[in-house]
Amino acid sequence: MRTLHIIFLTAGILLLSACSKPDKQIFGYKVASPDGQLSVLAGTDKDGTPMYEIRNKGQLVIAPSMLGFDLTDGEALDYDFSVTDVKFSSADEVWQPVWGEERDIRNRYNEMLLTLEQKGGVIMCLRFRMYNDGLGFRYEFPQENKLRYFNIAEERTEFAMTGDHIAWWISGDYDTQEYNYTRSRMSEIRARSRETRLGNASATGFDDAGVQTALQLKTDDGLYINIHEAAVVNYPTTNLLLDESNRIFRTWLTPDAEGVKGRMQAPCVTPWRTIMIVDDARKVLASRLILNLNEPCAIEDVSWIHPVKYMGVWWEMITGKSEWSYTWDVPSVQLGVTDYRALEPHGKHGATNTNVRRYIDFAAANGFDALLIEGWNEGWEDWFGCQKDYVFDFVTPYPDFDLPALNKYAHEHGIRLIMHHETSSSTVNYERHMEAAYNLMNEYGYDAVKSGYVGNIIPYGEHHYSQPLINHYLYALKEAARHHIMVNAHEAVRPTGLCRTWPNLIGNESAMGTEYRSNINPGHTCILPFTRLQGGPMDYTPGIFEQDMSVTAPGQHGKMRHTIGNQLGLYVTFYSPLQMAADLPENYERFPDAFQFIKDVAVDWEKSLYLEAEPGEYIVTARKPRLETLNSGRLSGKSSAYEFVHAGGKVHDVWFVGGVCGEQAHEAVVALDFLTPDVEYEAVLYADAPDADYETKPQAYTITRSTVTASDTLRIRMARSGGFGLSLRSK
Amino acid sequence: MRTLHIIFLTAGILLLSACSKPDKQIFGYKVASPDGQLSVLAGTDKDGTPMYEIRNKGQLVIAPSMLGFDLTDGEALDYDFSVTDVKFSSADEVWQPVWGEERDIRNRYNEMLLTLEQKGGVIMCLRFRMYNDGLGFRYEFPQENKLRYFNIAEERTEFAMTGDHIAWWISGDYDTQEYNYTRSRMSEIRARSRETRLGNASATGFDDAGVQTALQLKTDDGLYINIHEAAVVNYPTTNLLLDESNRIFRTWLTPDAEGVKGRMQAPCVTPWRTIMIVDDARKVLASRLILNLNEPCAIEDVSWIHPVKYMGVWWEMITGKSEWSYTWDVPSVQLGVTDYRALEPHGKHGATNTNVRRYIDFAAANGFDALLIEGWNEGWEDWFGCQKDYVFDFVTPYPDFDLPALNKYAHEHGIRLIMHHETSSSTVNYERHMEAAYNLMNEYGYDAVKSGYVGNIIPYGEHHYSQPLINHYLYALKEAARHHIMVNAHEAVRPTGLCRTWPNLIGNESAMGTEYRSNINPGHTCILPFTRLQGGPMDYTPGIFEQDMSVTAPGQHGKMRHTIGNQLGLYVTFYSPLQMAADLPENYERFPDAFQFIKDVAVDWEKSLYLEAEPGEYIVTARKPRLETLNSGRLSGKSSAYEFVHAGGKVHDVWFVGGVCGEQAHEAVVALDFLTPDVEYEAVLYADAPDADYETKPQAYTITRSTVTASDTLRIRMARSGGFGLSLRSK
Repeated sequence: MRTLHIIFLTAGILLLSACSKPDKQIFGYKVASPDGQLSVLAGTDKDGTPMYEIRNKGQLVIAPSMLGFDLTDGEALDYDFSVTDVKFSSADEVWQPVWGEERDIRNRYNEMLLTLEQKGGVIMCLRFRMYNDGLGFRYEFPQENKLRYFNIAEERTEFAMTGDHIAWWISGDYDTQEYNYTRSRMSEIRARSRETRLGNASATGFDDAGVQTALQLKTDDGLYINIHEAAVVNYPTTNLLLDESNRIFRTWLTPDAEGVKGRMQAPCVTPWRTIMIVDDARKVLASRLILNLNEPCAIEDVSWIHPVKYMGVWWEMITGKSEWSYTWDVPSVQLGVTDYRALEPHGKHGATNTNVRRYIDFAAANGFDALLIEGWNEGWEDWFGCQKDYVFDFVTPYPDFDLPALNKYAHEHGIRLIMHHETSSSTVNYERHMEAAYNLMNEYGYDAVKSGYVGNIIPYGEHHYSQPLINHYLYALKEAARHHIMVNAHEAVRPTGLCRTWPNLIGNESAMGTEYRSNINPGHTCILPFTRLQGGPMDYTPGIFEQDMSVTAPGQHGKMRHTIGNQLGLYVTFYSPLQMAADLPENYERFPDAFQFIKDVAVDWEKSLYLEAEPGEYIVTARKPRLETLNSGRLSGKSSAYEFVHAGGKVHDVWFVGGVCGEQAHEAVVALDFLTPDVEYEAVLYADAPDADYETKPQAYTITRSTVTASDTLRIRMARSGGFGLSLRSK
Repeated sequence: MRTLHIIFLTAGILLLSACSKPDKQIFGYKVASPDGQLSVLAGTDKDGTPMYEIRNKGQLVIAPSMLGFDLTDGEALDYDFSVTDVKFSSADEVWQPVWGEERDIRNRYNEMLLTLEQKGGVIMCLRFRMYNDGLGFRYEFPQENKLRYFNIAEERTEFAMTGDHIAWWISGDYDTQEYNYTRSRMSEIRARSRETRLGNASATGFDDAGVQTALQLKTDDGLYINIHEAAVVNYPTTNLLLDESNRIFRTWLTPDAEGVKGRMQAPCVTPWRTIMIVDDARKVLASRLILNLNEPCAIEDVSWIHPVKYMGVWWEMITGKSEWSYTWDVPSVQLGVTDYRALEPHGKHGATNTNVRRYIDFAAANGFDALLIEGWNEGWEDWFGCQKDYVFDFVTPYPDFDLPALNKYAHEHGIRLIMHHETSSSTVNYERHMEAAYNLMNEYGYDAVKSGYVGNIIPYGEHHYSQPLINHYLYALKEAARHHIMVNAHEAVRPTGLCRTWPNLIGNESAMGTEYRSNINPGHTCILPFTRLQGGPMDYTPGIFEQDMSVTAPGQHGKMRHTIGNQLGLYVTFYSPLQMAADLPENYERFPDAFQFIKDVAVDWEKSLYLEAEPGEYIVTARKPRLETLNSGRLSGKSSAYEFVHAGGKVHDVWFVGGVCGEQAHEAVVALDFLTPDVEYEAVLYADAPDADYETKPQAYTITRSTVTASDTLRIRMARSGGFGLSLRSK
């Protein structure tokens, strides 16, 4: 049940702000957050330029910043405007996500809707929603307007900072977010940009002072500012370009193949621009600003959507132990022409009938829901980098992958296979085959797909974040929903809360994940929840116990930079309804006691608490499983998480706590006051061993069992790039 | 039955040609046409540049011309080549098109396959097929090659002329062929280019000296040279750029959105480059060079493909009598959001239930097979010019168009409705809805679609003739074939004989057709068969009896520039298995005697004879109907053409003769020696009246009945921009 209370307030009084820049006086209206601490003043300056500013307890946090657009026809929507109407309202509702970090989400804000009219007749409305933890605002163009169709050359939304804040950023790009984050002063961004840009299959920077959303900032006064966007629909995703001399972040949209940054038809709205402002890093993690600004669920029957804990025939290809491809016996592949049955297999193919059965057996034995298999279909011999249109058909398996038989075998063992659709970024080709591909999934009972967008986009000249691609991702999601298919899209655009509206979007990559192996900086996982995860869950693929590539894949090199404790902590730190145990069965078999935490941990939550947090340094999170979805991902039998909660035939009260830390070791202080008072809990702590260290002893962990109550406080040491997992189960 | 005889000849002898340009000596091999009159010499010059030249009876017709490619990576395939192998063969087969100008087509040529190897290892083969009426050659890149994937910056194929020939040309363009032709010396092309470029919904010129294929030329020696291309598949369509100082036409491919002019993966072949060389204009019309160079039919069951004679709810919108749209009560449309039932109709909608029924009644009464209806579906209020992605969904009718009921009514009257899919050039959107759109057609028994590509292409930055669009058109055609749907694509690329391989491509526009009304120059229809129609049939939509727009659509202006006789002549002059009677029922009702010719004439032929021809001046054609398809387009009942042939219950021997002429009047001399000797035929001649003239008396015609035999010769006067139709039926 959703409840919505909208109260229409009396029209406000014209306000006048004398700001730090006397030439940027704003003549306009003001709306405050429900708790009164944050307020936005918006209107125009003396030239009719739309402007806004934000204050926290009266202090300027976002200095007067302009709003508007440049259009491709030479017109500009940034002058000669006047406010012709203002409406105030407020809302306080509670809604329930299909899956999430908590059962109930409160959506409480005060709203101000300004109608601006430009001399000449263009109407542009600005809708501001002021929350206790930040502001969302968007542009709205009503139908009755001088504008009917218009193309954006650039959105002129600015975010003017009041100081040279600390920023956690990745470099601006039209095609990839798969970078390590850098912590620096804003003024250092330009100089340090190049070092942050790892080679990527498709990367298109535009300016060294460009950064991506979500951008996490911290002021010297200890305020945490997070700039992001919500509900990016039929509009390009933005970057931010820092004007260093004025300390202004300017919107820098992703252009399409003709350089247009948004093709608009009134009536229409832009995505929400969001500015979270809180005084404690934990509040960033607790914020639901982005989800709240998205539209309610658009899928009527959501019974087929469920959380998934899965394994995959995947890490062995990432590490180089096996291959996606089937043969080296062909210089290049032409689908439908190349006859694989006439070719000599190279013997390193991962997705073989035998190997897949081995994974099914292991996943079934350990209470997983599903198994991803990559490299099952024809085309992997030269799938990438050639900008070839017809790379995959999404329906033709390799000769050694018996799709019907493997699905039958899997289903007999209670395991669903997860489909893999690598599009090679040819969305033209993917859309041509999508119906047949989804139909195949329906026929054999696949209910989830991992899609991939590696490489440069076809249609030629488009970018991963341009408007046509934004539309493609949503199209694929809607078509999948029609087929009752859940989607986990990799290399697609970073999410902006669309999973509220389309909860079959159960995962995204859209950041540097585990597959980057030794390239991932310690501390990366302590930044992602502040940035990438603000928009929705990430398929980070944690759980790598064997950090040394040469052990997993003889002949390979490189060591990952984390402890086993860190990997366990990620299952609680990163919220995702789709959670992988990414390592190989044989690596888990070497550490069965630590593996137990991955089996026990839930993936969908009743409640979440953020106990400690500082970007890049540490995060400690406590979560209580949502009972009714503990087993909903299962085809048959019981999930291992269900078994953990229902041990001994009774329903236990259960919490999981997870911690991760960065380059420096950290002692977490975990007060267990969230437990039910006067109840004894069995605590199992999976912690870094005292001598654990990501460089010297990454596999050193200790498992400690104890009995605790709500009055206990645990002090848990996390090694450098370490972490811990803690399960708490009522006796 | 197809028969194919390939004879491997002994390897040729190295030849050396001393040509008019001593620095362009070709060291290579030669192959001659079966009749020995034409020959091509090909190999390399002293720098290893691939070269060819063509001679007619020993005289140079195409001077030494280079071959090769520039690649986008900076490499060039135009130097340091040497011929490493040469193979000769020949073929003489007869094949039967599913529909066409004649039942049997002879494919007879001598072939030379040169293998060239560049220093460094690139292998490029050149396959030449020398016919009696011209040359086809293409590049072939075998799989075993240094090249695997490569992108073309430009194809360097040249066509070096030996003089300043007369050319019938339209200006080079990436997006439209809808121009009047200009007759001029080659040297005049640049200066006259601008005047030929009418405004068009999407037009992209590249150079004033650019022209399009097919290009018709005539030498001062009376040779007719026609440069075209055949089997353009997965490759852009080309223009030709004239280098005036050297009299060389250079290939100028259509770039994709990133400027690439062909993305290639070996093994692959280019389209055929064709150069027809004949000494009589009639031989150009009789040539089957383009069809012969295409692959055989790829559709196994062709039983569902049939000729169609149709009418349309169309000309009344073209003339302005009615509208495609339904309402003016909305500033712009958003499909799925705009509620048409809540809007006020403007009352000028053409595709209403009442009006469609009126057309069905008329078409049924007059023995037509089908009725096209445009403007039946939501979205026409602002369908064009905004580069909006989601313009149409191809399945939602307007409130006043009852699709199931109208189909039922039509089928009860033996008429099929022809579907209309205007894509507004958003191929992205069309492909997304294609399956549902074709399914709707299958559900209601539509078996033919007219598709349209008006406006600029989406994906943004693409062109109507770029490689991705070439692939789109073929994709749509293949998907249609899967659904047993025939396609008539307007504004798509000019055809290059693909209808041999995909005979469900029963029509294309791809040139200026009747819809241009008063903009069409006299003589236009005497050029099209030499140029546009070389690649396949055109849906020119002839049959306009009322040339004065103000009569058809009160309040409108403009007069078409042809006589009624001319319009009748087009039914025989323009070969098409899809032939329209484009005018309104009420206009035909005013001229029932002339309309009889349109009813009687067939659309598919046993045999065709080209009696008189000169580009732009006159064409006289005689065709004998193919009996077994006379009625195959009918859902039930008999077609009027069938009735004509079977009058009185017997099968008559029937021929139709048609003539059209240009700006000057012309007397056709029609020797009837093609008739069966000693048989009497009833001749009905629909000719321009003595005082007919396209400007002063366009509707003046005479109908003369007489009895003729094979020994008769008719002299038939055609007025300026006039023509005639003649039916000959054995008694």
